Amino acid sequence: MTARLPGAEDVRAAAARIASVAVRTPLLECTALDARCGGRVFVKPEVLQRTGSFKFRGAWNCLSQLSATERRGGVVAWSSGNHAQGVAAAARMLGLPALIVMPSDAPRLKIERTRGFGADVVLYDRATEVREEIGARIAAERGAVVVLPYDDPEIIAGQGTVGLEIAEDAARLGVALDAVLVPAGGGGLAAGTALALGATMPDAKVWCVEPQGFDDHARSLAAGQRLGNEAGGKSFCDALLAPMPGELTFAINSVRLAGGLAVSDTEVAVAMRFAFEDLKLVVEPGGAVALAAVLAGRYDARGKSVALVLSGGNADPVAFARVLAG
Amino acid sequence: MTARLPGAEDVRAAAARIASVAVRTPLLECTALDARCGGRVFVKPEVLQRTGSFKFRGAWNCLSQLSATERRGGVVAWSSGNHAQGVAAAARMLGLPALIVMPSDAPRLKIERTRGFGADVVLYDRATEVREEIGARIAAERGAVVVLPYDDPEIIAGQGTVGLEIAEDAARLGVALDAVLVPAGGGGLAAGTALALGATMPDAKVWCVEPQGFDDHARSLAAGQRLGNEAGGKSFCDALLAPMPGELTFAINSVRLAGGLAVSDTEVAVAMRFAFEDLKLVVEPGGAVALAAVLAGRYDARGKSVALVLSGGNADPVAFARVLAG
Repeated sequence: MTARLPGAEDVRAAAARIASVAVRTPLLECTALDARCGGRVFVKPEVLQRTGSFKFRGAWNCLSQLSATERRGGVVAWSSGNHAQGVAAAARMLGLPALIVMPSDAPRLKIERTRGFGADVVLYDRATEVREEIGARIAAERGAVVVLPYDDPEIIAGQGTVGLEIAEDAARLGVALDAVLVPAGGGGLAAGTALALGATMPDAKVWCVEPQGFDDHARSLAAGQRLGNEAGGKSFCDALLAPMPGELTFAINSVRLAGGLAVSDTEVAVAMRFAFEDLKLVVEPGGAVALAAVLAGRYDARGKSVALVLSGGNADPVAFARVLAG
Repeated sequence: MTARLPGAEDVRAAAARIASVAVRTPLLECTALDARCGGRVFVKPEVLQRTGSFKFRGAWNCLSQLSATERRGGVVAWSSGNHAQGVAAAARMLGLPALIVMPSDAPRLKIERTRGFGADVVLYDRATEVREEIGARIAAERGAVVVLPYDDPEIIAGQGTVGLEIAEDAARLGVALDAVLVPAGGGGLAAGTALALGATMPDAKVWCVEPQGFDDHARSLAAGQRLGNEAGGKSFCDALLAPMPGELTFAINSVRLAGGLAVSDTEVAVAMRFAFEDLKLVVEPGGAVALAAVLAGRYDARGKSVALVLSGGNADPVAFARVLAG
């Protein structure tokens, strides 16, 4: 691994780059959530972000820095659907061709939306094919730049703007956060958020939250080394099924995170219903794990001031209706 | 009618009263909505407000001004469910007893939430009973203050803070709004918004939007006098079924509104699905009529800068799932 580690100054630079194109999502306090948790719990609704997840931030930060030569060949990415849309939307805005490699069992909404942003989509079978190989081959054929989903300094810096905005808004409210909870797939959002908080609100602990069976960050952080998930795990948190922490992200997270928490699909479904009924926000399964951790008491928020990221809202209507029905 | 007409100064006073207790909802720009409408369309998501609708604003503005003597008897209100929750929540925060008269066919979520805020709920049959009579009788028995749903200067002023925030945030973004679209039941939100915009962004036209069959404001504004709805109309916009414009609200709206628009339940359902899929917001039928007007082209937003209010999100999960299923 030769890539340099990004720092808080890269997050600040990313914030300047995305300022005119990304949504500055608010930091919401929900009295129903406060009452339920016995603390002050703030929500950062990245579901309101362009493309419905935080992933647009990193994608724009990356793509907007490509040289004229690099832009010519366009971009290739692989993603279960949110990075896909982030890259596709940023590419369209910059006038670049984009091709995205997506699992054939990705939510239909995510595939349709990615195509809707003008990207070519190549589907693969998660059980028998390796997306990195497919993507790398196509990128070589096209002379395209690969936009990694998390293990890239500019992607991490871009996602870190979420943490920077949380710190700024909390400071404006006069709130010293005890903790910030973020969902983790490859760990890019966690790493970027930890960099931003470390520079702005260093007493706030950053925790990552994962689905049970895909708690590779939690176990890796505890062990002090990157560990993969057991094969055969199942979760409906389609955005958080990365096999193990990234190299670059883990180099940051292993130093900066307080630890990792895991939640069950049942706890996630409860959190999605809570978000629907009490926050009036549409949150996809993977986007709801940090809320699930607080609601289920996996993180004890009593007497604390906590911010959590609702990282994505690209839920299929049919699947969402099933969750609503219980 | 002897009540004084409120003015913009009352809206400003209300804004100061609610500042520490209400959510200052953001003004969101959604690129998917812009693309669909061919203009800049900003959304004011009052679904994120305390109690899930703008109604908390007026309720707090009213209740927080009651004298010690008035507080002793508590408050009585009648409402299909959003004013109910606003009054119940404000009453609980101020330590007052509250009793709310609600139709027996109100969404279950709204009845449960109103009780959840500690209010007593009395149900009545909309076909055979008159809620004002029931409420007035109970208020007399209890020595309670009646908190009207819209025809009250302090309620109108409180709801007007929605418009004030829209004007402030649009100005901060450097946007001169051509129009602001708000849902109308009794017309309190429309009247307050028109007062606020008149004082801060006078070139912005304020339109009210209603369900077809309940377009009493549209017809009254066109006729220059208050007209009621025909009996027997049906709409799933349960929050917007008031029989005719309020006296006080119409005195303001007849002078200040650009006019009224009406949308079908089918158009509202399309808007609710759009809010779910593209805005990631849960909007109840009555809260979605202004969005429906823009999406269905009842208001032509092409080339314009428009703000619309998503006024409430207290949708029953089961009914919402049906809308999602199409």
